[in-house]
Amino acid sequence: MKEEVFYSKGMKYIKEDYPDLYEGNVSLNKVAYTGKALDYKTQKLIALGINAAFSDDRAIKKQIMSSMQEFGTTKDEIVDVFRVVLLIAGKPAFMKAINILYELEDDECVCGGGVI
Amino acid sequence: MKEEVFYSKGMKYIKEDYPDLYEGNVSLNKVAYTGKALDYKTQKLIALGINAAFSDDRAIKKQIMSSMQEFGTTKDEIVDVFRVVLLIAGKPAFMKAINILYELEDDECVCGGGVI
Amino acid sequence: MKEEVFYSKGMKYIKEDYPDLYEGNVSLNKVAYTGKALDYKTQKLIALGINAAFSDDRAIKKQIMSSMQEFGTTKDEIVDVFRVVLLIAGKPAFMKAINILYELEDDECVCGGGVI
Amino acid sequence: MKEEVFYSKGMKYIKEDYPDLYEGNVSLNKVAYTGKALDYKTQKLIALGINAAFSDDRAIKKQIMSSMQEFGTTKDEIVDVFRVVLLIAGKPAFMKAINILYELEDDECVCGGGVI
Amino acid sequence: MKEEVFYSKGMKYIKEDYPDLYEGNVSLNKVAYTGKALDYKTQKLIALGINAAFSDDRAIKKQIMSSMQEFGTTKDEIVDVFRVVLLIAGKPAFMKAINILYELEDDECVCGGGVI
Amino acid sequence: MKEEVFYSKGMKYIKEDYPDLYEGNVSLNKVAYTGKALDYKTQKLIALGINAAFSDDRAIKKQIMSSMQEFGTTKDEIVDVFRVVLLIAGKPAFMKAINILYELEDDECVCGGGVI
Repeated sequence: MKEEVFYSKGMKYIKEDYPDLYEGNVSLNKVAYTGKALDYKTQKLIALGINAAFSDDRAIKKQIMSSMQEFGTTKDEIVDVFRVVLLIAGKPAFMKAINILYELEDDECVCGGGVI
Repeated sequence: MKEEVFYSKGMKYIKEDYPDLYEGNVSLNKVAYTGKALDYKTQKLIALGINAAFSDDRAIKKQIMSSMQEFGTTKDEIVDVFRVVLLIAGKPAFMKAINILYELEDDECVCGGGVI
Repeated sequence: MKEEVFYSKGMKYIKEDYPDLYEGNVSLNKVAYTGKALDYKTQKLIALGINAAFSDDRAIKKQIMSSMQEFGTTKDEIVDVFRVVLLIAGKPAFMKAINILYELEDDECVCGGGVI
Repeated sequence: MKEEVFYSKGMKYIKEDYPDLYEGNVSLNKVAYTGKALDYKTQKLIALGINAAFSDDRAIKKQIMSSMQEFGTTKDEIVDVFRVVLLIAGKPAFMKAINILYELEDDECVCGGGVI
Repeated sequence: MKEEVFYSKGMKYIKEDYPDLYEGNVSLNKVAYTGKALDYKTQKLIALGINAAFSDDRAIKKQIMSSMQEFGTTKDEIVDVFRVVLLIAGKPAFMKAINILYELEDDECVCGGGVI
Repeated sequence: MKEEVFYSKGMKYIKEDYPDLYEGNVSLNKVAYTGKALDYKTQKLIALGINAAFSDDRAIKKQIMSSMQEFGTTKDEIVDVFRVVLLIAGKPAFMKAINILYELEDDECVCGGGVI
């Protein structure tokens, strides 16, 4: 299933106010994640890597959470994505991503959730 | 093996003139690509995705070639990386990457190589 | 009038502490927005598009507010800018901009302002 | 008409080899450029501004040419876009865009074309 | 001394959970800041300039604080770095950096610290 | 002297066609490089670092050449700038800058110039 599990508040408004733009986003998502050769999980890890390289807090957080929930992606797998970010995009981008990962982990601990 | 197969002319000079900096690059490569959970091929595809998102011609070309030679990565797999680039980094970054891929393919065809 | 309506706290300090740098910023603004052929409103929408493409929260918010107040720019016009951002800069940049737009709208609603 | 007039060699290959991805690009273009409130020419100038801010040579060139041919956009209008680029994205991005504009103009002069 | 004075919470976790990755970061830092010809302070100012050009809040703040504490870097020196950011990376990146600098200064005043 | 020694063909055209925009660029340069506390050479090295972090070929080349000619900046000093680029902006940006540096050096050798 390639729908966005956590879609943001903004996207809900877009669906109501600009249905053509909403449909455009759904189609784009489908085209992007309907790989011929790579599986969806791998493609989502690539998306996470790009978002981390762009230092985009919101997108990093969203990708980590959806990847863990949809595919059971482990912390080790996510750190392996961020190793590549360190090499290709430098240390500040890497540290931002690592900090978000551990903050998510801490949040879970407080809640007793233990997803991570 | 995680050494760089195609290392650029610049890196050869660095090895001679600034050996500590060369060693630093080798170590960084090793740390980046020694994943605990993802295999090396997947990590290289993530690197390709980030380079394409950054619209870095030279790095895109180098990653495509090394990925095809080291892992037999197929054109379909590479296009699946670029699908994610379209979604996360937009159409100009996607088109630049696609153009480089097809130019490499054309070059191969002329030479009768057929690697791609 | 091409002065900045909402200029930030930092700019006020710069005016006091580094008057040459403040003057430099004023001149740059003037040169940028004194188009020969495009009107000021169009140039401000281009500025908004670039800020959104750069995923710069603070600048996006500032541009939306000043554009609405100075020119009566509508939500539809702003969403049309962000459509281009989706194409050229990808979905995370688009979503960040859309979220900021709707948060501003929600804030206004709470206050009964109704500017948007 | 919102089809791309100058579509690149790469896009032709995509149309043949990955028709779903080609269709996805066509849809995305349509959604992006079907503004409710801004006209197509203004949206294309915003696209040019973002491409220039990203320092993307190929995309800048393509946008200048298509904008001049489709809408008769003048050099003054394009320079007004680049004034905003100077302010928002800095001088190197501005200079790259200006150089591309004048190279295109020089090319035209040689050919006696006089489009610019 | 080239160790990071303010290392972030995330880095502490990395040290525990992924010691090889931690060591990789330490080595990278050492290689980067062991200049042959420029002193460490100048290199740190270059790092600050790049972080500001990338509009990275967290890294800008961290670099300003460590630079002031380790080298007694003055506000004037930091503003001189940001002058270059205005030229090369544009006004929004410049304003973000200036705002962070003055917020740090204000924080110090509240605490009676007076470091800045 | 803070005028640009190597100013590009595009800037000459701007001077003729858009004198206000030319003047705006001259003023911006002056404000940027008239530091209160850092000397001009240090500010130019920061500019080089940012250009390298942005992977801007043309600007990197121009900054290296002007820095060597105006201040006698050495190869070691430039490599020290690029060490910081490796840390903050990643390996592809670093390699691009290093390659440009060595290509310039090779060009000089061919010409018997020996500036580098």
